[in-house]
Amino acid sequence: MSKTDQGNFFEDFEVGQVIRHATPRTVTSGDQALYTALYGSRFAVQSSDAFAKGLGYAHAPIDDLLTFHIVFGKTVPDISLNAVANLGYAGGRFLAPVFPGDTLSTVSEVIGKKENSNGKTGVVYVRSTGYTDKGTEVLDYVRWVMVNKRVASNPAPEPVVPDLPAALDPQSLGMAVPLLDSAKWDNDLSGSQYRFGDYEIGEKIDHVDGMTVEEAEHQMATRLYQNTAKVHFNKHTEATSRFGHRLIYGGHVISIARALSFNGLANAFHIAAINGGRHVAPLGAGDTVYAWSEVLDKAEIDGRTDVGALRLRLVATRDRPCHDFPGRNPDGAYVDNVILDFDYWALMPK
Amino acid sequence: MSKTDQGNFFEDFEVGQVIRHATPRTVTSGDQALYTALYGSRFAVQSSDAFAKGLGYAHAPIDDLLTFHIVFGKTVPDISLNAVANLGYAGGRFLAPVFPGDTLSTVSEVIGKKENSNGKTGVVYVRSTGYTDKGTEVLDYVRWVMVNKRVASNPAPEPVVPDLPAALDPQSLGMAVPLLDSAKWDNDLSGSQYRFGDYEIGEKIDHVDGMTVEEAEHQMATRLYQNTAKVHFNKHTEATSRFGHRLIYGGHVISIARALSFNGLANAFHIAAINGGRHVAPLGAGDTVYAWSEVLDKAEIDGRTDVGALRLRLVATRDRPCHDFPGRNPDGAYVDNVILDFDYWALMPK
Amino acid sequence: MSKTDQGNFFEDFEVGQVIRHATPRTVTSGDQALYTALYGSRFAVQSSDAFAKGLGYAHAPIDDLLTFHIVFGKTVPDISLNAVANLGYAGGRFLAPVFPGDTLSTVSEVIGKKENSNGKTGVVYVRSTGYTDKGTEVLDYVRWVMVNKRVASNPAPEPVVPDLPAALDPQSLGMAVPLLDSAKWDNDLSGSQYRFGDYEIGEKIDHVDGMTVEEAEHQMATRLYQNTAKVHFNKHTEATSRFGHRLIYGGHVISIARALSFNGLANAFHIAAINGGRHVAPLGAGDTVYAWSEVLDKAEIDGRTDVGALRLRLVATRDRPCHDFPGRNPDGAYVDNVILDFDYWALMPK
Repeated sequence: MSKTDQGNFFEDFEVGQVIRHATPRTVTSGDQALYTALYGSRFAVQSSDAFAKGLGYAHAPIDDLLTFHIVFGKTVPDISLNAVANLGYAGGRFLAPVFPGDTLSTVSEVIGKKENSNGKTGVVYVRSTGYTDKGTEVLDYVRWVMVNKRVASNPAPEPVVPDLPAALDPQSLGMAVPLLDSAKWDNDLSGSQYRFGDYEIGEKIDHVDGMTVEEAEHQMATRLYQNTAKVHFNKHTEATSRFGHRLIYGGHVISIARALSFNGLANAFHIAAINGGRHVAPLGAGDTVYAWSEVLDKAEIDGRTDVGALRLRLVATRDRPCHDFPGRNPDGAYVDNVILDFDYWALMPK
Repeated sequence: MSKTDQGNFFEDFEVGQVIRHATPRTVTSGDQALYTALYGSRFAVQSSDAFAKGLGYAHAPIDDLLTFHIVFGKTVPDISLNAVANLGYAGGRFLAPVFPGDTLSTVSEVIGKKENSNGKTGVVYVRSTGYTDKGTEVLDYVRWVMVNKRVASNPAPEPVVPDLPAALDPQSLGMAVPLLDSAKWDNDLSGSQYRFGDYEIGEKIDHVDGMTVEEAEHQMATRLYQNTAKVHFNKHTEATSRFGHRLIYGGHVISIARALSFNGLANAFHIAAINGGRHVAPLGAGDTVYAWSEVLDKAEIDGRTDVGALRLRLVATRDRPCHDFPGRNPDGAYVDNVILDFDYWALMPK
Repeated sequence: MSKTDQGNFFEDFEVGQVIRHATPRTVTSGDQALYTALYGSRFAVQSSDAFAKGLGYAHAPIDDLLTFHIVFGKTVPDISLNAVANLGYAGGRFLAPVFPGDTLSTVSEVIGKKENSNGKTGVVYVRSTGYTDKGTEVLDYVRWVMVNKRVASNPAPEPVVPDLPAALDPQSLGMAVPLLDSAKWDNDLSGSQYRFGDYEIGEKIDHVDGMTVEEAEHQMATRLYQNTAKVHFNKHTEATSRFGHRLIYGGHVISIARALSFNGLANAFHIAAINGGRHVAPLGAGDTVYAWSEVLDKAEIDGRTDVGALRLRLVATRDRPCHDFPGRNPDGAYVDNVILDFDYWALMPK
């Protein structure tokens, strides 16, 4: 009996099953420094203790997506080691700020599973929740992955598909942000004069800059998150895969696009919720990521005069500038070179 | 009206204009760890809390050039996003030590501008000052950059060229170094028996070792400094530039050469001033940096018996060992493969 | 007289000589974050303050091999700058936990030297000891290296070869681990249900996963350790070496293999001793490391009911999966593509 973990197959998941994941992880200022080095993120709240404290934070929180990646990474050995594809995200909520010194761990519940018609694979739906060592819930989200069956002839289970929201209710947003003294928000230091009131639904923003990804960068990022998915790390096997090279962790693309979005959305300092996300195509090392955003919606949050919420669509491409906002064709198919379509709520000072 | 920042052009700068730059940045031990990983710096004062405290520091300060790069990086979106070339530095003074936990921000004043005879570009002179969140000035320096005009037919402004010192007065040096108990300076731990008295004006030192730079390294460094200059990051566009590849941030070269200079200058623990600097030619990934130094001058500092100042010329090359101290030819042109000519004051224990 | 350090040659070492190495180094959470990013290590004790404190540690200690690499790195400029090969390790003991904030320095004693029959090189044996700034000994180990003679015609010294143990006595192990409250050891969080009692002598474990190494990764790692050996960093000279490329620091391979061994040995949380190690063949960038382990021995430690010791052989390969446990052929020669054969004692909760 091998002591090596081979990961779970479709048959191994049961709806209602709860999995406590290894390994708990204390987040430090070292992680945040690496996050800055990997993406060049410049949002002032996460970059500066002084800026964050001036607004009402205890300290600068770590980047929201760093929290996401660490919480996510823990689920990989149990959920997606044998995954064929990471199909989507929904219902992600950032519930409390995370500070250096907090220890994060993750628990997942299987909330759905459905065999595919080919009989060889199936889709597993999981709600994962990240906690601090004090028991504070900092993030939860649903993702669904296509997983191989162990034995194709095993019978299909009764399908269970969870009901997932298209978008989070804006009234549920902002729990990770203290009431801010927005008079202290300094547009010069934050990098933009544009606040909540300056954005309009339907507005599109080209983030202009391109960022090329190197193998060492995405490998270091993905290991920092203790994400063990094999396709990211093994040139020896991936050279003979259908892509012919290592695939970059999809979350790495989200973080690059988010960092690029600073140019045009510098005051969108906090990701409050992930409504949905789709990795349209894979990214490989040597490719250059571009991004653009569209304002899908705007909302006031009851009881908060300090911040408002922008629902943003963040689209990333590979080796294709975004001045013409490439997305879907009229037939619904994505334009070539689109790699990410990500829908989230961001908070912005008023 | 786009919310994307396209950077400033020559016409956008006015002499006397003051720019408060985004993004404030709290420096941490994580940044210093990355600095060590990127350059392999070994100066004992910055590497060891115990060594620094023994001499009279509160803690180990961060590397002087890490301070420089962070203060510099903030100026890029406003000053040099459309720069054709970073032409030079002068009058740089390190005024206070920076410790993990300090938040740095930068303010620049435009102190000169002069259109070039081609009518398409001009030179802008800027004095940039780095501050901590307590208002302590930690660094100021002048740089001048060649910037594109927005419209070539716009009339040339009245030229204003600031008067810049060839070198800092040694009596102004050392403000970032407390009075040291130099009896506690341990030559074994610092890595060299050679102190201030052992160096002679005119002496040349080959630093022997070579360091090859990878794309992932310079990109991580430059993002760590939140420097957004496009030429460092975008393979997709730079592949068709006149160089055919991404260009490495010039400050990355200075830091590599400074780290190599440990071998021969291990006790030159502090950069007190930058007299001048010129990036003679660009560096690309895969190139190997070598360096040598020349002692240009020596000076006592009034009231200080602990340290003296060496004025050093640090020259770096690309794929060319420096045993014969390559610099300028008799006609004044640089020898092939010289990439950096940097003039600074270093402090050394007596 | 050059101030540049050219390193020591065989003739420069004397048995009994004690060398205090530069540069002292304060270890921080930034170093640990980089270690995680470089190797993806997932052992819970080193990853989580909360997990470590629950067991009886003051905080999460840094990874044992991070301590090893930092202590080792300091010896390179004095011991192995002119080394032809790092031949082996023995008698390594981890004596105290190292926490962020501790400053490490290293002292070495030359304990043997023996000229090779070719008259051009010799073997130097060194015992190196790492200390904190409080004087606590955290690690000692012996290594022996082949070093060039300065002048081949110099007479051979009287050979002195130290008597080295084949393995550490298990009763000497565990000093770096406080008495643990092993009832608090949580198998879900640590990543495995298998504890000390579940492993049998002779058992072999394939760690399955492969990890490809990039130039930027091993260079950043090796600089983080302030290890200055030239072969790791200089493409310009190494391109014409007999290997044709930069060689990866052997300790980088040990750390990769150790991180891979989590899959099968997740509860082997501490390296208590290094019995021996041999770098069978070099690794270059672009190669993929695989690993497997064999349980060589098991031991109780007197007075400790919390943990037991497993003596493990950790074998790493290059571009070769390890499902058939490649090691030595019947004639004693290593199977092709084996690069590391490492023998250590690990502690595991009972």
